Amino acid sequence: MPPRRVIGIDAGGTKLLGGVVDEDLVVHHRVHRTWRGADRAETLDIFVEAVEEARTAAPDVDAVGFGVPALVDRELGVSRWSTHLPLEEVPFRDLMSERLGLPVVIDNDANAALVAEARFGAARDTDHAVLVALGTGIGSGLLLDGRIYRGSRGLGAELGHMVIDMHGPDCQGACPGRGCLEVMASGSAIGREGEAAARRSPESALGRRLAAGREISGGIVTELAHDGDEVARAVLAEIGRRLGYGLVGVVNVFNPELIVIGGGAIAAGELLLEPARAVVAERALPPAREAVRIAPTHFGDESGMLGAALMALDPVVSAS
Amino acid sequence: MPPRRVIGIDAGGTKLLGGVVDEDLVVHHRVHRTWRGADRAETLDIFVEAVEEARTAAPDVDAVGFGVPALVDRELGVSRWSTHLPLEEVPFRDLMSERLGLPVVIDNDANAALVAEARFGAARDTDHAVLVALGTGIGSGLLLDGRIYRGSRGLGAELGHMVIDMHGPDCQGACPGRGCLEVMASGSAIGREGEAAARRSPESALGRRLAAGREISGGIVTELAHDGDEVARAVLAEIGRRLGYGLVGVVNVFNPELIVIGGGAIAAGELLLEPARAVVAERALPPAREAVRIAPTHFGDESGMLGAALMALDPVVSAS
Repeated sequence: MPPRRVIGIDAGGTKLLGGVVDEDLVVHHRVHRTWRGADRAETLDIFVEAVEEARTAAPDVDAVGFGVPALVDRELGVSRWSTHLPLEEVPFRDLMSERLGLPVVIDNDANAALVAEARFGAARDTDHAVLVALGTGIGSGLLLDGRIYRGSRGLGAELGHMVIDMHGPDCQGACPGRGCLEVMASGSAIGREGEAAARRSPESALGRRLAAGREISGGIVTELAHDGDEVARAVLAEIGRRLGYGLVGVVNVFNPELIVIGGGAIAAGELLLEPARAVVAERALPPAREAVRIAPTHFGDESGMLGAALMALDPVVSAS
Repeated sequence: MPPRRVIGIDAGGTKLLGGVVDEDLVVHHRVHRTWRGADRAETLDIFVEAVEEARTAAPDVDAVGFGVPALVDRELGVSRWSTHLPLEEVPFRDLMSERLGLPVVIDNDANAALVAEARFGAARDTDHAVLVALGTGIGSGLLLDGRIYRGSRGLGAELGHMVIDMHGPDCQGACPGRGCLEVMASGSAIGREGEAAARRSPESALGRRLAAGREISGGIVTELAHDGDEVARAVLAEIGRRLGYGLVGVVNVFNPELIVIGGGAIAAGELLLEPARAVVAERALPPAREAVRIAPTHFGDESGMLGAALMALDPVVSAS
C-alpha cells in the first residue's frame, strides 16, 4: 500500500507555499501563490486554487492542513484576527472543508512550523522550545512542558508583538503596537532598513541596486550580504541585534532549552543569528542564557508547510 | 483541635515579611527585617532570626515556606542565582531545614505570591493568569493552562527582564540586561524617577521633600501622589505607561484572562494601573486585549508571605 498523502499549506503575510506530503514527510509537489492586496473573497479563492493545483498532481490526497498568519481558534477552526490578511472572524475550517470536499485542519502558521520542528526537526527531544519565524511579519510558537501553548482563547504566542522599543516606530499591518519585535526585526524590517542603508551608501552594492530601480527586499539584502557587501551585512547585523533583544526576553521568560529561528529571513543564516546570539550572551540572565541554544529551523522555510501536512495526517497528536 | 500553623517568609530585594499563618489563612503574628548590603552569611542569619522570632510567638508551627527573589530549583530546593541577594548556588532548603529543625519549602517569591492569588485571591477560578510584583525589582509568576510555569530548569517566568527599551538604561543589581521592564517600572524606578522629578520641580511637594534632605523612595512618591502632588502623580503615570508597554507583550504572548499586579508599589493603586491599562487598550492586539483584565492583588503586598505559608501547609498542591 502506498503511503497516505495530504496537502500542507503554509500561508505567510505575502505568499503561500503548499505541498503534497506523504507519511514519510516526502514532498511530491509544491505550489506557490502571492496575495498582495487580495480582499477576503480573493484570499480564500487563492487558498482553494492552491489546493486544487496540488490535488491535480495528487488526486489521492485525503486531507488538507492550513497554517495561516492569524490568531486561530483551533478547536472551532475559526480565524479570529490577522495582522496581515483579511481573515477576521472567518470560519475557515468549515468553509474550506465544504469547498474542497476534504477534511481540513487549521492552525496558526508558526504553530504549524513548531509541530514539524518539534516532531522531526531541530526541537526534537526537547520539552521547552520557542520557534520564531521571520517573514513578512514574525510568527512564533511555544512548546512549554512538552505541549504547544495557545493561551486562554488560542490567541497567544505572539512573540512578534512583544515591545522591545517603547519609543520605536508603529508596528506593521493591523497591529496597533509600537516598537514590537515584528516591526523591528522581521524580514520586512530587513528590507526597510536595507532601503535606508542603500540611500545612505549609494556606492555600495545595495545602493547601486536601488539606483537601478530595484525594490530593496529582505531577500535582496540577504543575497548581497552573502556576496560580501558590507552595507548589506551591517543591515543584517543590526536586525540580528534587535532580534537578540527580543530573545533576551524570551530566554528570561521561558527558560527554553532551544530557540529555533525560521521563516524566509533565515536564509541570512549566521549573518543574522550570530549578532542575535551575541546580545543574548551579553544581556540575558546568566543561568538561563547558559541553558539555551539558538539554532535555525531544520526544515528551513518549509517547516510551516510540513507542519500543516503533519496536522492533516494526524490532527489529534499535533493538537497537543 | 486547633488549626495547623506554619510560617511564611516573603523575601524581597530590600526587606523581608514573615508571618505565622494558619490553615484558614489567618495571620497571627508578623515579623519584618531589612538586609541592605548583607553578605551571604548575614542574609541567611536574617532568615533564621526572622523565623525564630515568629516561632517564639507560635511554638506550635510545624513547617516553614520561603519565597525568595531568586531563580530557584524548587525540586532540589536550591537558589541558583539572584539579581538582588547573595544567594547564588545556595542549597537553601536543606540548609534552613537543618538550622531550624523544621520541614522547609522554597520557591521564587513571585511564584509564592501567585500560589496565594491563584488559590484564594484575584486569580481564583482562572487557568491563565500572570502575576507581576513591583518592588525593589520586578518578580513575576505564570499560571499557564492551570499550572505554574517554571521553564526547563526552573529559571523562567522572569518577566521583569523582558527588554521594553533596547536603547534604555542598564538594568539593576546583577542583571546584565538593558531597558528591562524591571529597571523601567519597578518600585525602585518610581523612586529614581521621583528624585529626578523633584530636582526638576523644586517647588512641588516632592521637590520640597528632597530639599528637606529626605531620600525619595517609591513609597514617598506614592504617598505624595495620593495627597494630590501633580509632580508625583506624573511620575506614577509615566511608570504606569512603561508597565503598560511591558504588559502589551504579556497580553500578546500569553493571552491571559487576568494580569495581577502586586508588590509594594501596588500601594499606588489606580494611579499606576490606569495608565498601564490605557497603553494595553491602545497597543495590544485587539482580540487578546479584549480577553484580559488587569487587577491588583487580592492580598496587597502580603500575597508572597501567604503563598509561602500555603506552600509550607501543602507542598504537593502548590508545586503544580
